[in-house]
Amino acid sequence: MKVAILGATGQNGTSIVNGLLASTKTRFDIVALVRPSSLKKPKVIELQSKGVDIASFSLDDPEDHLAAQLKGIDVLIICCLIDQAILANAAKKAGVKRYVPCFYATVMPRGVQILRDTKETTLDHIQRLHLPYTVIDVGWWYQISLPRLPSGRIDRNLFLYNSAIGGSGDIPCARTDSRDVGRYVARIITDPRTLNQKVFAYTDLRTQHELYDTVERISGEKIERKYRTADEIDDGIARTKDDPYKMMDYYQFTYQKSYDIMGENTPDYARYLGYQTSKDLYPDMKGISFEDFFEETLEHGLKPMYEEYADLLRGSSSFIFDGKAITE
Amino acid sequence: MKVAILGATGQNGTSIVNGLLASTKTRFDIVALVRPSSLKKPKVIELQSKGVDIASFSLDDPEDHLAAQLKGIDVLIICCLIDQAILANAAKKAGVKRYVPCFYATVMPRGVQILRDTKETTLDHIQRLHLPYTVIDVGWWYQISLPRLPSGRIDRNLFLYNSAIGGSGDIPCARTDSRDVGRYVARIITDPRTLNQKVFAYTDLRTQHELYDTVERISGEKIERKYRTADEIDDGIARTKDDPYKMMDYYQFTYQKSYDIMGENTPDYARYLGYQTSKDLYPDMKGISFEDFFEETLEHGLKPMYEEYADLLRGSSSFIFDGKAITE
Repeated sequence: MKVAILGATGQNGTSIVNGLLASTKTRFDIVALVRPSSLKKPKVIELQSKGVDIASFSLDDPEDHLAAQLKGIDVLIICCLIDQAILANAAKKAGVKRYVPCFYATVMPRGVQILRDTKETTLDHIQRLHLPYTVIDVGWWYQISLPRLPSGRIDRNLFLYNSAIGGSGDIPCARTDSRDVGRYVARIITDPRTLNQKVFAYTDLRTQHELYDTVERISGEKIERKYRTADEIDDGIARTKDDPYKMMDYYQFTYQKSYDIMGENTPDYARYLGYQTSKDLYPDMKGISFEDFFEETLEHGLKPMYEEYADLLRGSSSFIFDGKAITE
Repeated sequence: MKVAILGATGQNGTSIVNGLLASTKTRFDIVALVRPSSLKKPKVIELQSKGVDIASFSLDDPEDHLAAQLKGIDVLIICCLIDQAILANAAKKAGVKRYVPCFYATVMPRGVQILRDTKETTLDHIQRLHLPYTVIDVGWWYQISLPRLPSGRIDRNLFLYNSAIGGSGDIPCARTDSRDVGRYVARIITDPRTLNQKVFAYTDLRTQHELYDTVERISGEKIERKYRTADEIDDGIARTKDDPYKMMDYYQFTYQKSYDIMGENTPDYARYLGYQTSKDLYPDMKGISFEDFFEETLEHGLKPMYEEYADLLRGSSSFIFDGKAITE
């Protein structure tokens, strides 16, 4: 199966490349579509050394040119937030058999978050093209679910942390180890049952209180639990929504409203929105447990995430970068 | 099962009331929600004589008042084009177990037709409320699919006629007798498999050429086939979309683009958009065949439809009213 990935060096892209390479069920020929100016970047060279083909690919090229480049691709996976209209048109012309637009987040309805709505608008465009597709959401990453420990021993690379519990703390929320995203994707894109469907792939389902309890039990540290009420979250959304410098806060408030207050990042609500779930589709599949992830984190620390976004994060309230909270 | 209907005297509403009353599988207690100023209208009195309860219901009342009125309702069916936000809020508060928003048309993606997009926006609102729902589309009605016969013998009450074939004429299109809508609805709203789903209920699937062939064979009349190219339809959409006096033409062009050019009003495309279909769900169910409908029409003529819209139709290009083409 020939798979092309746009955004293969990002957080999800890396996980997906690794997941496809590790697959024993299917042999994937992977090609990373890389913009000409990035061909010599270390992360691209690294991809190549793993056995990934690299293709120079410029979204500024004419649609027909892109279509010619996509000829013969079975599955096209997008892992970056770009306007996908021309890309989807080209994929349709090229006869791509499955287009995976960039979702990879929590489940929510339309009209809650601008980013999500943009993803839905992309899906509308895909559906007007009659282009075969699969939407994949993966819940919230373990890697950005951790509260800070009083000892500070997990602060290093704690990119986005759990600064406050939204609402009562008793609403379940689905979470996944970022490194498992690719394993789910490898399974989903080879499954005919998921063609023209939305799939919710997740590993863990627990409430904020259960998550804090687990972190306290395994770390042996007591964490002060801060809370954010539904009204405070709504105020936060109103305050940040039109301020481009508060974009990351806006995202965090809107995500939190959806998962902590509305309980939308759950298999029940996902089914309500028409999703299939990984637990129903692949009962045999076990992702990395939250406990294992957290024990590993205590022992070895977190790996760096999204280093390229440091500037964007300055001024946001729930970010730590390289061991130092940016603001607090 | 207690069912409330808003818009019970309209074309779909009448079919739905009849379908529920005729059901042998389930006994429905039906209440028609009627605006205070319409309580004495003949069609409302007629409903009452059929055994339908009438409740005075004003959308200008406060949400809590509407919620109190909806208390105890299992299924709320909307058969009129109104802003449903307050109504859906009230239904959620009242604990309505299934909300059926006003769809009842052909299948199409977002971004093709303003009316369809408005329906989708209503569904977004429903989904933000986590209100249980079922979307029901029924394809194109037989009653508005007929070409005029040279003899003029079916012109009477030919409300909206088949004035031109879009594209090649070889694209299949799903159609249903308007009188069967209620029979499908009765089945769908009692089926747990259709909760929080979209259902495409239709009886007949044939191309325009097949439809014309059937009409010629049964009537014994030869019909001149006029065609409208994809470009002409696109031009028609561009010309009518911002002109409120051309609204009905705009609808007809956009519907035709979707069903005759894009082939979207089919079970395949409906499944692609995540719909269940009546043929898959209820293989035992037989709707009125197009042949039977047309033979009956030749013998007895069409029944009046949408008389209240005569003014709206004046100036549109594919309407006949009371035996007289309004323009041509």
